Amino acid sequence: MRASRPAVHPVEAPPPAPTVAAQAQAQEQGQGQGEGVAHPRGVRMKDPPGAPGTPAGLGLRLAQAFFAAAALAVMASTNDFPSVSAFSYLVAAAILQCLWSLSLAFIDIYALLVKRSLRNARAVCIFTIGDGVTGTLTLGAACASAGITVLIGNDLNICAENHCASFETATAMAFISWFALAPSCILNFWSMASR
Amino acid sequence: MRASRPAVHPVEAPPPAPTVAAQAQAQEQGQGQGEGVAHPRGVRMKDPPGAPGTPAGLGLRLAQAFFAAAALAVMASTNDFPSVSAFSYLVAAAILQCLWSLSLAFIDIYALLVKRSLRNARAVCIFTIGDGVTGTLTLGAACASAGITVLIGNDLNICAENHCASFETATAMAFISWFALAPSCILNFWSMASR
Repeated sequence: MRASRPAVHPVEAPPPAPTVAAQAQAQEQGQGQGEGVAHPRGVRMKDPPGAPGTPAGLGLRLAQAFFAAAALAVMASTNDFPSVSAFSYLVAAAILQCLWSLSLAFIDIYALLVKRSLRNARAVCIFTIGDGVTGTLTLGAACASAGITVLIGNDLNICAENHCASFETATAMAFISWFALAPSCILNFWSMASR
Repeated sequence: MRASRPAVHPVEAPPPAPTVAAQAQAQEQGQGQGEGVAHPRGVRMKDPPGAPGTPAGLGLRLAQAFFAAAALAVMASTNDFPSVSAFSYLVAAAILQCLWSLSLAFIDIYALLVKRSLRNARAVCIFTIGDGVTGTLTLGAACASAGITVLIGNDLNICAENHCASFETATAMAFISWFALAPSCILNFWSMASR
């Protein structure tokens, strides 16, 4: 049926392999001459470093899980954290962050072992939403703990009767875990939006 | 020169107005049939509601600025907020959020008056980074204040000698301001990534 219709617009021969940089350049210059018509959209882009299914992405996931586990361990090592809601919330958020990052690390390891790309539309969408939710929770828990820690240490000066060092360490670990999560989330969202 | 070359792929008549939803659907179904070949990529997408330069985007900006100003006013109406670092930080973050949202609201009003689109690559990049930074600061301040408020109200039960209602209201306003900021930031990032 398609061959029987006349060509409305003559199309030039598609270029051999349009790279991401070349595409972006072409789009900026407004050249909508139909490059890439012959390629299905899902396979022509390479995974950027840090995306799921790459060694850098696996490293980011392991760093997130490690620092979340460190925050959890340091906070749980103090015996009076359940008396402050924000510290209990930090423990809960660190557990969630650790589980999420470890699950995605296992998926990354599997993808690396079988050499499969994880640029599936639905998978990237789930990763992005999960990253956004856990990232917001971890950042919120870290900020709440930081508020309490600064209140105890600087505003009230009652560090002598509290485990200030442990609270500060756990808060710092949670912040570092969030800083490791942010690139994953941004990269996932970017690859979800740019497909 | 283009008319002298043979058509490599017969192209169907381009659809009248490809919307964002229709494009996403077509891409998911893997139809690389070259729709939109005749349109340069920068102009074929219409601004989604909520993007900068649209009435919904202006409404979001005004909501952000209003709730940030409300958080600032309620928190500043208590006389003892400077004694807690987290509450001072909330005031600072609310001022920054209010200034940023008002600036972008003025830009939106200008764009609406002169009927110009704000889909400029550099402008969208600046909007996204600014939204991300102010959003992170506002969320952090709101979470820190929430941690302190819960500590005062639920853990220590010393609301009688503190302005718990004001603290809670200011925290809630900061959270609402962040919730109004999140769609702007996501839409800006999306339009930055998808161009």
